[in-house]
Amino acid sequence: MKIICIGSGNVATHLSLALKKKGHIFSQIYSRSEENAEILAKQLNCKWTSSIHDISNDADIYLFAVKDAALEELVAKLKPNNGICIHTAGSVPITIFEKYSKNYGVMYPLQTFSKEQLVDFKKIPFFIEANNSKNEDIIFTIATELSEKVQRLSSEKRKYLHLSAVFACNFTNHMYTIANNILEQQGLDFSVILPLIDETASKVHHLSPKEAQTGPAVRFDHNIIEKQIKLIDKETANIYLSISKNIYKTHQK
Amino acid sequence: MKIICIGSGNVATHLSLALKKKGHIFSQIYSRSEENAEILAKQLNCKWTSSIHDISNDADIYLFAVKDAALEELVAKLKPNNGICIHTAGSVPITIFEKYSKNYGVMYPLQTFSKEQLVDFKKIPFFIEANNSKNEDIIFTIATELSEKVQRLSSEKRKYLHLSAVFACNFTNHMYTIANNILEQQGLDFSVILPLIDETASKVHHLSPKEAQTGPAVRFDHNIIEKQIKLIDKETANIYLSISKNIYKTHQK
Repeated sequence: MKIICIGSGNVATHLSLALKKKGHIFSQIYSRSEENAEILAKQLNCKWTSSIHDISNDADIYLFAVKDAALEELVAKLKPNNGICIHTAGSVPITIFEKYSKNYGVMYPLQTFSKEQLVDFKKIPFFIEANNSKNEDIIFTIATELSEKVQRLSSEKRKYLHLSAVFACNFTNHMYTIANNILEQQGLDFSVILPLIDETASKVHHLSPKEAQTGPAVRFDHNIIEKQIKLIDKETANIYLSISKNIYKTHQK
Repeated sequence: MKIICIGSGNVATHLSLALKKKGHIFSQIYSRSEENAEILAKQLNCKWTSSIHDISNDADIYLFAVKDAALEELVAKLKPNNGICIHTAGSVPITIFEKYSKNYGVMYPLQTFSKEQLVDFKKIPFFIEANNSKNEDIIFTIATELSEKVQRLSSEKRKYLHLSAVFACNFTNHMYTIANNILEQQGLDFSVILPLIDETASKVHHLSPKEAQTGPAVRFDHNIIEKQIKLIDKETANIYLSISKNIYKTHQK
């Protein structure tokens, strides 16, 4: 497949490099940032542009890995073409393409990507969708080259999947940030808490998260909760209390 | 060392079994629950009691691994003895012993324990404290038999350490619970999100949690945030918003 990659962020970088490894050819990279476009183009051994109007109209696949907010504007500006437009976003419905393209779909990898960290796509679940079964077959084939875990999922359900990822990844990471701030203020190194973080993630491979829940909020231990909220600023204390109340409620059921 | 274990929960079980492996002798187990006391006593090959007044006064170590709220009452009821009273709680100050005992201290393992899951104590950080240097040396020696990572820490700092663990473990686990609920409602299996959970934990071994942060809250993407809070109940939406605002604030700094 001849692919044009639109975007040069973490998802664009990891996904396009993995597809190149599988023998796909990238003919062009578009990015708003000339610098990022050039870096990724070198790795993919292809041309790059920072002007949306210079995107060629002869690709088989237009792979969009850009911010949700930028997606529709970019799709709208593509020259008429016969390629399949594919986006990689959790929360954007497939219908974003319908005004602009005949062939389109979605390929959403459920993972968090950092530029610095290598990614093994094999175990990453991919959720795909397309405007017809021919395009779905093509997207399914591409996704299964990368991952052992590909499944079809509607935009409606993908929206909820992405929301669950916001809790399990983004908000979890912020719990780490708050823990880090508390430790730093006491002159303690964040590394002391890594075994606990790892075990917390590991436990839910064997137990349901509800079964794995421990801590003072399960029985809403007033004594310790009241002491602990006095140790933190008001905003963090509000987060502490709202999560604790929700834990208690969950475990009363 | 001749040890009496007071408590039969997850911490008591894992810790006493690990100490037995290192050659310590358990002479007695106390637990409110006769059933649990008997189960653990069998594993430790020792006597058990569910009556606090039957705890022998000839042990070298009285190891308390009970709920915070139960601790003082139990300590107060011990017969006069020359053993070292040691508790294992994050948020309870060492001074809880001072009215009742001449020799006392703390040995706090920073980990989450489940009965079902095996624990490798070697990599678990232990935080110790004692009322004098002789007792501190004894507790240090015991802790280093189990773990490579033993350090002294005051009650004041341990209190904050425990608070950071509430965020990094208890609250993180509740983020998994909310994710699980959202997935279940859509007929999706929780296992689809495990690679994301693992990678989120793995990333903070190499990046600071602040550097690792991704998702719509970093730039407070109104469009997606407003869509997402409409998908969840009011209480969960409040948690979503308060964490998102705090993420945004953290990343504005």
